[in-house]
Amino acid sequence: MSDEPRTTLSLPVAPDVRMPGAAIHAPGPDAPIGVFDSGIGGLTVARELMHQLPGESILYVGDTARVPYGPKSPETVRRYSREIGDFLCEQGVKAVVIACNTATAHALDTLRAALPVPVIGVVEPGAHAAVAASRSRHIGVIGTAGTINSFAYERAIRAMAPDAVITSRACPLFVPLVEEGWIDHEVTRLVARDYLQPLANAGVDTLVLGCTHYPLLKDIVGGMMPHVRLIDSAEQTAREVRQLLSERGLLSDASAPTHRFYATDAPGQMLRLGRRFLGDAIERVETLAIG
Amino acid sequence: MSDEPRTTLSLPVAPDVRMPGAAIHAPGPDAPIGVFDSGIGGLTVARELMHQLPGESILYVGDTARVPYGPKSPETVRRYSREIGDFLCEQGVKAVVIACNTATAHALDTLRAALPVPVIGVVEPGAHAAVAASRSRHIGVIGTAGTINSFAYERAIRAMAPDAVITSRACPLFVPLVEEGWIDHEVTRLVARDYLQPLANAGVDTLVLGCTHYPLLKDIVGGMMPHVRLIDSAEQTAREVRQLLSERGLLSDASAPTHRFYATDAPGQMLRLGRRFLGDAIERVETLAIG
Repeated sequence: MSDEPRTTLSLPVAPDVRMPGAAIHAPGPDAPIGVFDSGIGGLTVARELMHQLPGESILYVGDTARVPYGPKSPETVRRYSREIGDFLCEQGVKAVVIACNTATAHALDTLRAALPVPVIGVVEPGAHAAVAASRSRHIGVIGTAGTINSFAYERAIRAMAPDAVITSRACPLFVPLVEEGWIDHEVTRLVARDYLQPLANAGVDTLVLGCTHYPLLKDIVGGMMPHVRLIDSAEQTAREVRQLLSERGLLSDASAPTHRFYATDAPGQMLRLGRRFLGDAIERVETLAIG
Repeated sequence: MSDEPRTTLSLPVAPDVRMPGAAIHAPGPDAPIGVFDSGIGGLTVARELMHQLPGESILYVGDTARVPYGPKSPETVRRYSREIGDFLCEQGVKAVVIACNTATAHALDTLRAALPVPVIGVVEPGAHAAVAASRSRHIGVIGTAGTINSFAYERAIRAMAPDAVITSRACPLFVPLVEEGWIDHEVTRLVARDYLQPLANAGVDTLVLGCTHYPLLKDIVGGMMPHVRLIDSAEQTAREVRQLLSERGLLSDASAPTHRFYATDAPGQMLRLGRRFLGDAIERVETLAIG
């Protein structure tokens, strides 16, 4: 990581790491949207933001030094999320998107109370999309142990559809497999079969991919559950970001928005995997010295 | 309710409502076990206590004036539970069994902190029995809206079996149907079909009857899910009560234990339904003036 640009929280922020349009006091429309995840999974949300909001600058942090968040305690996940949220606000973002289900489940309220800009998570948009998509009202939910044990999706789904039948399970190996880059690997297929067979048999008509890493396994998951509607929170989350920015007069239609990516470790890995589905939109990944 | 004996919390407790063996300061082995539920469902737990612990006196309160607890807020259920717990302790019980899943989900911790005697709920025993019974680790959970929205069973099951697949749903009409006495009624069968078909299809091998009323519908539920093991928390709860009393030297082997039943409303209805499955063990139901 030595020849990657390095940003350190303990030093004053150098002018060159400020995003174009960032303001100290009141970020305007040209300020970037801050997006963070425990690792590369949140890039699925960044991609959708780029697609739906092509004029927006984005500052993305993947906490690859501390991935996975899924098995960690709520307190630890809150602490990590707060550090990254503070960093993003120091960089002048106009909104923070928690592109990580575990962090949303544990830290959404904390960040909303602590940060000076609006904060959007992925759980409510995902639940909303699932309830809208399901006809049978039998909805499946998969996620990390942290997300599943928090019942964040189940809670959100039942608040919208009290009669929902919900089948859920934790899939703890999916994040490490994705972070390893094994998104089309025989081992991943075997793990997926073990995890998903009961859900496939259960008769859910809709499955919430309750982790932003999971859309990277969409082919494998979809192959095992061909008649099930897969819900990737990213699309609905981007829609809600657009609505929020619009309400606050913060939408940008810049012709040359900036997309900047930070990893807290192994930026090369994020770049390599990010290119698979962001293409040229991810040119380089800088290292951020937290974690 | 006018010709039923009436006990009022606001008056000093009359000697004739004290249970045999009740003591003001330290209830001994001959003191009764206090059991309460939102209504008649907890009688399934009382029956199992009588079966496994034939020497124990029991003081049962069914809060029939305020049934159902399922749709009520956690705060309200905690307040009702506290009132009944205080009443039972004033009567000198040696332990309190919360024979109601909703009250266990919302009020177990509160009563454990507030009451001077041990308190046992039905959720952990039920979860324990389910995990022990399930081979496929695909476990179904049904309960009131309060119990299902509290995720109390799911939490307990996942703590014991992190890899469990859990399919759950609220069955809000079951309690009113049981309280109405419609335990073998065409309407109840139609409601059950609607509630249970998705669970029957889902491939659970074990179903937690997550409400003490539901064992009264065992024939209907079992008829719809013939190959599924139905988990009634009562049996395991009684086992854990026996163990707790044994550890504390509080087991009784009285030859003529007393079983006393209170309803906060409509004692005749509790007597009639109670007779169906307690037989002569329930001779009369007194009215308790709370609620």
